[in-house]
Amino acid sequence: MQILATLIVIDRDSIQPVYQQLANRLMQLIKDGTLPVSHRLLSTRKMAELLKIHRKTVVRAYDELLAQGWLESEGGNGTFVSSNLPKLELKNPSAKNGTKVNVLKNAGFSIGNADHLKRKINKTTQSYHLDDGYPDSRLAPLTELSRAYRTQLLTGNSYVRFGYGDTKGSLLLREELCTYFAETRGLNIDTENILITRGTVMGLYLVSAALITPGEHVVVTELGWKAASMNFLQAQAIVHKIAVDEHGMVVDELRRLCLVTKIRLVYLTPHHHYPTTVPMRADRRIQLLSLAEEFGFIIFEDDYDYDFHYMNRPLQPLVSADKTGHVIYCGSFTKSIAPAFRVGYLVAPENVIQQLAQLRRIVDRQGDFMLENSIAELFKLGTIQKHLRKSLRVYRERRDVFCDLIKHHLNNKIHFQVPEGGMAVWAIADLSIDIQDLSFKALKKDIYINDGSGFGEAPTINNNLRLGFASSNVAELEYIVETIAKLL
Amino acid sequence: MQILATLIVIDRDSIQPVYQQLANRLMQLIKDGTLPVSHRLLSTRKMAELLKIHRKTVVRAYDELLAQGWLESEGGNGTFVSSNLPKLELKNPSAKNGTKVNVLKNAGFSIGNADHLKRKINKTTQSYHLDDGYPDSRLAPLTELSRAYRTQLLTGNSYVRFGYGDTKGSLLLREELCTYFAETRGLNIDTENILITRGTVMGLYLVSAALITPGEHVVVTELGWKAASMNFLQAQAIVHKIAVDEHGMVVDELRRLCLVTKIRLVYLTPHHHYPTTVPMRADRRIQLLSLAEEFGFIIFEDDYDYDFHYMNRPLQPLVSADKTGHVIYCGSFTKSIAPAFRVGYLVAPENVIQQLAQLRRIVDRQGDFMLENSIAELFKLGTIQKHLRKSLRVYRERRDVFCDLIKHHLNNKIHFQVPEGGMAVWAIADLSIDIQDLSFKALKKDIYINDGSGFGEAPTINNNLRLGFASSNVAELEYIVETIAKLL
Repeated sequence: MQILATLIVIDRDSIQPVYQQLANRLMQLIKDGTLPVSHRLLSTRKMAELLKIHRKTVVRAYDELLAQGWLESEGGNGTFVSSNLPKLELKNPSAKNGTKVNVLKNAGFSIGNADHLKRKINKTTQSYHLDDGYPDSRLAPLTELSRAYRTQLLTGNSYVRFGYGDTKGSLLLREELCTYFAETRGLNIDTENILITRGTVMGLYLVSAALITPGEHVVVTELGWKAASMNFLQAQAIVHKIAVDEHGMVVDELRRLCLVTKIRLVYLTPHHHYPTTVPMRADRRIQLLSLAEEFGFIIFEDDYDYDFHYMNRPLQPLVSADKTGHVIYCGSFTKSIAPAFRVGYLVAPENVIQQLAQLRRIVDRQGDFMLENSIAELFKLGTIQKHLRKSLRVYRERRDVFCDLIKHHLNNKIHFQVPEGGMAVWAIADLSIDIQDLSFKALKKDIYINDGSGFGEAPTINNNLRLGFASSNVAELEYIVETIAKLL
Repeated sequence: MQILATLIVIDRDSIQPVYQQLANRLMQLIKDGTLPVSHRLLSTRKMAELLKIHRKTVVRAYDELLAQGWLESEGGNGTFVSSNLPKLELKNPSAKNGTKVNVLKNAGFSIGNADHLKRKINKTTQSYHLDDGYPDSRLAPLTELSRAYRTQLLTGNSYVRFGYGDTKGSLLLREELCTYFAETRGLNIDTENILITRGTVMGLYLVSAALITPGEHVVVTELGWKAASMNFLQAQAIVHKIAVDEHGMVVDELRRLCLVTKIRLVYLTPHHHYPTTVPMRADRRIQLLSLAEEFGFIIFEDDYDYDFHYMNRPLQPLVSADKTGHVIYCGSFTKSIAPAFRVGYLVAPENVIQQLAQLRRIVDRQGDFMLENSIAELFKLGTIQKHLRKSLRVYRERRDVFCDLIKHHLNNKIHFQVPEGGMAVWAIADLSIDIQDLSFKALKKDIYINDGSGFGEAPTINNNLRLGFASSNVAELEYIVETIAKLL
């Protein structure tokens, strides 16, 4: 009996009622075979004395277990462990340990493998960083966003507002985006042409999962954004790579491929090519649109940083010139607010959006309407637009400062063109420099340097660097470049 | 020349600079053929006079278009539309209309079809509702949530906090859930056994997409949650249906199926079977776990409303008794806060969580850390626990009131068992009642009645209703039942 008292420990500080703790523990002891089938339990009075709890509590626990079939009662003869329970739990002796039994490392079923999804994720925690080209979230209108979010939470009919909504996303935000796209991108669309996503990644995923059949051919650029290819491989596409030069994707090469292979989708970043930052030239854009029409493929236009162009060139996105419904346009607030704000958009013909919205319903049902409506509110107030104008000014200055710093301190060691837009400088380090070694030394100085894994198949062969400057202020950029100069 | 002035409208209230508006408009006119190849543009002086803008503005616009290759300059002879541009835009005469050209209804590529994803979505906007079983978000701790969210937005190192994070979700929330699961579910796990999802739907999606190979066999219950089957069909599984009775899934029937068919996954809602609300009996639970081990299938345990059980029965979830790594456990805050708060969780062996996290990376990269951390903070403060205790009390009272109201006003017309938990009553209407007709009449009285589409293949044949009572207070429930009584 004393042994039973050590096996049944009641925690009076738990939020779980005592009778429930007792019932759970008895169930566990039955399941692991400590209390075997047909074992006669202590009477409720004796159990109550043993555990120093009220008898009614024990009665309640026994009643629960009787009702669930763990115990059976034989009239006045007492209460027994049910004889109908299979004895499977006895197989596993570790269950008797009582704690942490569910910390399972491995499944009891096969989980296959997914090599194409195994990719290192860099998490930058250093105080200083030349990252992949992230915004400076210190500039973001967080107070305004917090206020808008609070209003969303505390105003209006909560049943409708907090219920299930349109899988296409917040209508308010889609309306604001229509206006914004018309003003900034020459893109005149309707709310039914927009699906609010949780960022570019989800845009890629939905399009790949909904529109690519296993075995279809997809084109990406080399160099390009590797994570996009992961999506196409997950959809079991055959992925082809087309070269990029100083004017973006080499469309002639794509044309030659189209003549011999039926292409389903072409993925590219025409505004500022990732990772090299160059804009795609106007004639190539027109040729690409023409090819899409001729060969019937989808153009997936990933416009990840449209709002940050410093040369005042009104290069409209491809979608704004698409008259035949071949472009699916994708963007996000990752660069305009911060990566953690998972809100983005897909723009496409209405029937495509409908199909993607149907898929989205079973992927995660819907976006975060509170956040989407909050961003819509900040558009309506002009806060986002003001933030983007300010960011553009600040990032342009940082670009200029950063480029001057490299020229001054790293002359003949790091070669680059001043980027026309975006948040990073594409550079080539002198071949005498071991980039991996430099990155490693910099980490010890609390500086993260984006060493180029992620741009293509063998990026460091060319000693390339993509140096994000936007997330650091001028003083930080000075410290970073001066420190690197000392390390070289 | 006057025609050109009507074609180029400058909007001085736009956030777009005037030169950019002009450049965009000229580009559009070139693309749609209004300004043909080799057309000589007005001089900058004449254009400025025509549009009543500064000449420098025109110079800047022309310079942009020259740089982009839309225009070419022939020394002192003037500025011309570039002769290198393909004339594809001329094909589409509608482009000349100038506005709304991008409101495309249909894609220029084939979009296939996805019949299994086509399903009506009910959006309840009525003031009164017997819904599918949603919580009352008026009870939710929204002020506390708003405060926690504000703290998340405005405190600490924004670069790390607003950057990319762990695809498994907020570590803070996973830690809190470990404690919470141990206290309420007898489930002792580690943070590496948890993936934070955006709700049960995403849990189902990730598991289906990562672990089901096309052609594999999946088991669901009939009646059951139809939306789950949509996910399995999307993964191209073959879906089998097993009966449920008053003790949950009929496991003997599943055993017979296992003897002839290799089953990959069994989906069920054992705590309160959806839609009938009955708990699965203990012996069947043990038999099911034993079957999973014997035949090597996955149990997908959808525990959508664990926290709302009124009979004080400590029925632990299946996962708490799983010693062999066969259960994937899924839940969400849909029922404990509100559907719009898209936060949920998967619990599984560590290698399964790793694989699901890799997939999640390409689906939407990561969850909403601000929201996840805010919920973690409310767990730490005890706010969520307090809210759940309060909700349980309130919903139990509403259940009792609602059941009494039905008995009193709809006696012999609506038959039901008082549910042991959850947020809905499963009922059968007398065959003399036409449920569709009743729903329609009720809508006119501003009352939504969940008419049963969604439970199975032919739900209304049995005149079933699932009547969610939790989202309505006592006065609302009285109005609803009394009004329905008058309609019958």
